[in-house]
Amino acid sequence: MPTNRAATGMKRRATLKDIAKVAGVHLSTVSRALDPRTQKLLTPEVVADIRRISRELNYRPNAAAHSLRTNRTRTVGVVVPDITNPVFPPIIRGIEDALAKRGYLAVLANTDGRLVQEAEIADLLRARGVDGLILASVEREDDAVSRIAAEGLPIVTVNRRVDDPAVSSVVNDEDAGILDVLRHLVSLGHRRIANVAGPQAMSTGVERYQAFERHRRALGVDDDPALVVIAAGFNEEAGMAMTRELFKRRVGFTALVAANDRLAIGAMDALRMNGLNCPRDVSVTGYNDMPLVDRLSPALTTVRIQQYQVGFDAGRILVDLIETSAEHRSPQHLVNPVELIVRNSSDVPDVP
Amino acid sequence: MPTNRAATGMKRRATLKDIAKVAGVHLSTVSRALDPRTQKLLTPEVVADIRRISRELNYRPNAAAHSLRTNRTRTVGVVVPDITNPVFPPIIRGIEDALAKRGYLAVLANTDGRLVQEAEIADLLRARGVDGLILASVEREDDAVSRIAAEGLPIVTVNRRVDDPAVSSVVNDEDAGILDVLRHLVSLGHRRIANVAGPQAMSTGVERYQAFERHRRALGVDDDPALVVIAAGFNEEAGMAMTRELFKRRVGFTALVAANDRLAIGAMDALRMNGLNCPRDVSVTGYNDMPLVDRLSPALTTVRIQQYQVGFDAGRILVDLIETSAEHRSPQHLVNPVELIVRNSSDVPDVP
Repeated sequence: MPTNRAATGMKRRATLKDIAKVAGVHLSTVSRALDPRTQKLLTPEVVADIRRISRELNYRPNAAAHSLRTNRTRTVGVVVPDITNPVFPPIIRGIEDALAKRGYLAVLANTDGRLVQEAEIADLLRARGVDGLILASVEREDDAVSRIAAEGLPIVTVNRRVDDPAVSSVVNDEDAGILDVLRHLVSLGHRRIANVAGPQAMSTGVERYQAFERHRRALGVDDDPALVVIAAGFNEEAGMAMTRELFKRRVGFTALVAANDRLAIGAMDALRMNGLNCPRDVSVTGYNDMPLVDRLSPALTTVRIQQYQVGFDAGRILVDLIETSAEHRSPQHLVNPVELIVRNSSDVPDVP
Repeated sequence: MPTNRAATGMKRRATLKDIAKVAGVHLSTVSRALDPRTQKLLTPEVVADIRRISRELNYRPNAAAHSLRTNRTRTVGVVVPDITNPVFPPIIRGIEDALAKRGYLAVLANTDGRLVQEAEIADLLRARGVDGLILASVEREDDAVSRIAAEGLPIVTVNRRVDDPAVSSVVNDEDAGILDVLRHLVSLGHRRIANVAGPQAMSTGVERYQAFERHRRALGVDDDPALVVIAAGFNEEAGMAMTRELFKRRVGFTALVAANDRLAIGAMDALRMNGLNCPRDVSVTGYNDMPLVDRLSPALTTVRIQQYQVGFDAGRILVDLIETSAEHRSPQHLVNPVELIVRNSSDVPDVP
């Protein structure tokens, strides 16, 4: 019988049976040794031995055949607005660690913050057979997310949530974070406190904004509407532009609460360019506690979110959902505690 | 005939034929519309129409069946030491964008900088049927990488390379980066220049160290061996520990070249704790131009690597390798140019 195996350089694929024969063990022992979820049933020596033999025989489990058999790929799609935004890497790391513990891998995709892109990417990932999705990029009203969830694909949103309660979420306690910031500023003596709020299409933007409105009244500080501006994006440029807008309004303020660290960095840039000193002239606070904001000059007072933990929880909840039969699944919503981190960018107001 | 479809809530899966029927087009048009690589052959309206119908019919292409047919999964494994290290997200973003352009997705895994972990992860990814690997975590001598490459799986290393020239790589011009740093410091008047070199198990560590040795001699500055220390890791703690080691040696230096930004940040911490001012007492330079190092106090003079570009190039080269038949593949090695970024952490030496 003619064969072109030699020409293409292909060898016959080694099977589990081949490994069992060489190792002198039962086929089921080989299966257990090569599956991360069952290998702890065996001694480490047996596992090492069988793994070595499987490598020597160039064994490659046929993932595609396994997927067809089980209708599972043990991959999870992870969709973020932009991995180069420093908030996301620790979240992704947490997701990945939770998935790895259960034998799942993360397929990563960026949306560039565009909602249309997100729906397309979610469809693409679903088409490629992921078992579930973790979305860090959702807006509050997201038909694509509701549609895909309704079709039965497990979804967890992380850091933000959609308004639809049928979609599971792991978020941070935005209300407590803003309350802690306001209490801190009020205790320093601030009464004219501005707010550079975030985009209202995202749950983080709207929840931090609403917390600011609610608590500034409860704490009895000036609730002048002119002290509040709403940024178009969660970035440095928007922070600078909105702080300039506050200057234009000539409202006068001694402290500025930014809805995230990047807006705060932009606000500090705007102050500097207007010859104002932070914290002497204006105290500034952020949100997220991104890497390196402790090393800014002045170091940024901010709210620390448990980035790794929200990621880890989202991964864990998603695998639980995947491994629960569809009729027994119910959405889960987790709110993680946050922590105020006081640094040099907030101080007592300079009373003229 | 009894059926339990109703009980399990499953519907018959819609096929391409069903979509073609509803859309009133030929089957091949449906295939083209749903494949990112061929949909540009059709008008945007036709594509939108067919995609809408496929959604309404709840069509899901069977990725596993496709993989079995083609022996391709169009996924690529991307292995990094730690995604929370700010050097890596822009590299990953570049990889992902290059892959997306060609219809591939990235599966992400962290090694925590452990070589054993890396070999295991590479094996795991291969077992899960990735079409190729991009490794950002390699050490110079890495048997696992050579073994997997020899078995025929396309591999590209990014940022670092292995000594084995059979493994493709995309790296930065380490020699030019260190030469630019030394020329800059010499032009300011420095003659006693210390070096906190990186781990010698990585190509970046050894190439930057060798460039320092070569060029400090060529430029005629003191080549006292006591001015050079080698850090155990590329992180802040090692930078602080090694700078203290230099103090202990009482060698005297007016500038310190660190092998990356994190070592430089650790060195600046050590200076501060010893009552020394940067740059007045000691100028410090880094390498990589990580996010936010322009906002440190003092802002860090460093070498900007094209993180996004090396990632993008690695993705592009890997897909080229995957789509070339094994017998026509040849390793590719790309060296990307770097750029010296002068900021406030380097200045003329303070002559007593």
